[in-house]
Amino acid sequence: MMIVPGPTSVNLGSKISNLLEIKVAPVEFKFFPDGESYIRFTEDISGEDVVIVQSTGPPQDTSLIQLLLMIDAAKDLEARSIVAIVPYLAYARQDKRFRPGEAISIRAVIELLETAGIDRFITVNIHNPEVMDEFVVPAESLSAIPQLAKYFKDKDLTGAFSLAPDKGAVEIVKEADKILNGGYGWLEKERNIVTGEVTIEEKEFNVKDKNVIIFDDIISTGGTVSSAAEILKKQGAKKVYAACVHPLLVGDARERILTSGVDEIVGTDCISSSFSVVSVAPLIAEALKRGV
Amino acid sequence: MMIVPGPTSVNLGSKISNLLEIKVAPVEFKFFPDGESYIRFTEDISGEDVVIVQSTGPPQDTSLIQLLLMIDAAKDLEARSIVAIVPYLAYARQDKRFRPGEAISIRAVIELLETAGIDRFITVNIHNPEVMDEFVVPAESLSAIPQLAKYFKDKDLTGAFSLAPDKGAVEIVKEADKILNGGYGWLEKERNIVTGEVTIEEKEFNVKDKNVIIFDDIISTGGTVSSAAEILKKQGAKKVYAACVHPLLVGDARERILTSGVDEIVGTDCISSSFSVVSVAPLIAEALKRGV
Repeated sequence: MMIVPGPTSVNLGSKISNLLEIKVAPVEFKFFPDGESYIRFTEDISGEDVVIVQSTGPPQDTSLIQLLLMIDAAKDLEARSIVAIVPYLAYARQDKRFRPGEAISIRAVIELLETAGIDRFITVNIHNPEVMDEFVVPAESLSAIPQLAKYFKDKDLTGAFSLAPDKGAVEIVKEADKILNGGYGWLEKERNIVTGEVTIEEKEFNVKDKNVIIFDDIISTGGTVSSAAEILKKQGAKKVYAACVHPLLVGDARERILTSGVDEIVGTDCISSSFSVVSVAPLIAEALKRGV
Repeated sequence: MMIVPGPTSVNLGSKISNLLEIKVAPVEFKFFPDGESYIRFTEDISGEDVVIVQSTGPPQDTSLIQLLLMIDAAKDLEARSIVAIVPYLAYARQDKRFRPGEAISIRAVIELLETAGIDRFITVNIHNPEVMDEFVVPAESLSAIPQLAKYFKDKDLTGAFSLAPDKGAVEIVKEADKILNGGYGWLEKERNIVTGEVTIEEKEFNVKDKNVIIFDDIISTGGTVSSAAEILKKQGAKKVYAACVHPLLVGDARERILTSGVDEIVGTDCISSSFSVVSVAPLIAEALKRGV
């Protein structure tokens, strides 16, 4: 087996290879002056079981095309099998037709990955687990929530309340609460499908003088987390933390979240960022050892 | 038949539909705050023959993903047939393995387009015509060189010398010379496959006091065209023009080319830019009327 860290996941790929004590097969990577990506395998991978690690965070389209080029090249160079590890899978939120005529983008992305030539697919906390059924090849979405919860447990935050900023994240806080044991709840969020505008219903929680951790799969603009933090602070919460698996944090998300009363933003290295304090490398190494 | 102009080719798509007097079915298009593309067909396209017009100039990866999302959605929305018109096809220059282990990117791109669901493919002056053989569906590369040559003929430049900046563009200048009748020639260019550095051999042409038009399929950084213009100026050429089908002109290409002694840069609307003075709409409309 050889680990091939793609341009977006060089560190995570190295960590996985260290944990498994298997060889890294680096790819040479550059941009041409016009912006096209260049990919070259520097090791002979023919006959090898190749594990490509490439997250598809912003710029999503470039990360995706690089991933597709790597898979296609690995197939063409006669790799024996190709596992794609895509810790963050772009377009996973466009998973149904919210309005007539919309592209169901994630279905297109999955079809493209399979055509390019993957034999197995691994991601982490996909937004909607039902999406995994679209794969024909063996595919799984691992959960990094226990790792995130343990990070807070190690910070002496056992007993903290786990809050889901919307009902979609309920399973996430249930999972976190198994480790933190401080109870859990969720807010009701509504998104206008045309404008994208979000409204959150204020709900009472028993959080006075308690620490609260807001858990979500993705933090993007930080709008939802900030609104949740403001509600919690109004209800007398002590410290408020924001934890997510995929720290996209686009634009001024960081400032927005910290201003809303959040003390710390904690993410994983599914997306390489300054918030990637928890590594998913052990989780992924475990899945690779386990096999399909 | 319905014409669907994609986000990168709104003007060209409208021109084609006007020439053919057929309906435009617009797509609603936006970027999500994290940078993902959103695509929605605003007309019912089920049972229709759909012609998607989307060039894939810079940012190439985003243009490509938008194209793939549109094709996939059109298929999913039960279009009767899908023609993809991609006047500039990204990654077409990575058409063979120059060094061991390289991704042959254009092969991957073609495979992705076919998987997404096209029934016919039309592009304009693909860098290497042999690439067209990779398509399984009917596919053609039209030539806009006669249109470009006619532009110069209309400017009273009949008799101008047509120069190919490298041997790959010889067929292009042969085509141009049929209209301009001033003779043609080519320079010998060598590209270092590792560094990408280009060296051009100085060759003597009979261009003293003559107008010269440098023809190429793509002008990207402008390096090749500038070197060619300098050689021509040294040999006493009167006016020097730079003509291309695909005006990428990245970075300071424009300044670079004009400084080298070029009087005017002329491109087509295969890529929408300030150099798109010649339209390929009639050429494409003709191909659509002709059918496969």
